[in-house]
Amino acid sequence: MPKIQVEVSARHCHLSKNDLEKLFGKGYKLTVLKKVSQPGQFSANEEIKIIGSKGELKLRVVGPIREKTQVELPVTDCYRFLGIEPVLRVSGDIKGTPGAVLVGPKGRVEIKEGVIVAQRHLHVSDKEAKDLKVKNGDLVSVKIKGVRGLTFDQVIVRAGKEHKKSFQIDTDEGNACGWRPGLEGELII
Amino acid sequence: MPKIQVEVSARHCHLSKNDLEKLFGKGYKLTVLKKVSQPGQFSANEEIKIIGSKGELKLRVVGPIREKTQVELPVTDCYRFLGIEPVLRVSGDIKGTPGAVLVGPKGRVEIKEGVIVAQRHLHVSDKEAKDLKVKNGDLVSVKIKGVRGLTFDQVIVRAGKEHKKSFQIDTDEGNACGWRPGLEGELII
Repeated sequence: MPKIQVEVSARHCHLSKNDLEKLFGKGYKLTVLKKVSQPGQFSANEEIKIIGSKGELKLRVVGPIREKTQVELPVTDCYRFLGIEPVLRVSGDIKGTPGAVLVGPKGRVEIKEGVIVAQRHLHVSDKEAKDLKVKNGDLVSVKIKGVRGLTFDQVIVRAGKEHKKSFQIDTDEGNACGWRPGLEGELII
Repeated sequence: MPKIQVEVSARHCHLSKNDLEKLFGKGYKLTVLKKVSQPGQFSANEEIKIIGSKGELKLRVVGPIREKTQVELPVTDCYRFLGIEPVLRVSGDIKGTPGAVLVGPKGRVEIKEGVIVAQRHLHVSDKEAKDLKVKNGDLVSVKIKGVRGLTFDQVIVRAGKEHKKSFQIDTDEGNACGWRPGLEGELII
């Protein structure tokens, strides 16, 4: 079975140009803290705050800017700190999801929707998808070995030219499977 | 495949008689808040604090008293709040595990070991074990369906007369599999 690197995404947000400017000021540009696995994307130096009915948390911004603002949280953060209903979605599919208040150094914005728990997913380039015999939108499984071994089902394939092979889960899922740096899973199609 | 009720254990502790008295006073007896699934065990009204190198958290006491004090935490709590190394163990097997400071209304105690992340486990009575064709110490799997469907491997069977059929996972594992009240899994032997 093909081996796939397992990456854990901590809570973070993507910002639209409009929301970036409301939070950081007119004409503001995100600055790169470090590149992440997906081509062209980066953890930014910038952080904001998200406020729910129960409390607030810091959020790392992941750049570059996107068409729509989106916050990605593990279920733990939704329940324990924020009081936001956890709604599982594929990244980008935010219609009807919960909103929140976001606060930056220069202003605040109330988003009406956009807070999601990201569905576990497998990024692959078009070539990698072909090699692995999967296509965008397929549901596959990934088996993790070890003392907390488990097999993740419902892994949605996200294939395209801006993607690069990586299996992404959130911190709850990472803790549940005993994630450690360098962990690889086995792809089951 | 046999269906098994899935229960999520939040962080909690079991106390020895000696530690109970240090924390709550000489001759103190735990009082029942509510019974839990395992025969004779209960969530107590009593809470204590656990202090690690990074911070502290409240802990519910689960009674009755045990021979040794044991704290059960999800990995999230170990890393994010306490600064305690998460060590996965079967309940009761605490030799060489991390310690912590516990604080109650009448005193504090420094335990040298006893803080564990509990290995996911299947409680069964002797009769249930026989019916399911499993025995104490076996490793089995439990499949969870739904939008965060997954199959937990490394589920250790804990069979005996004080046990009753229940599959127990922690809050990280519950969030990772989309746990909701009444969730059942399928036992895979």
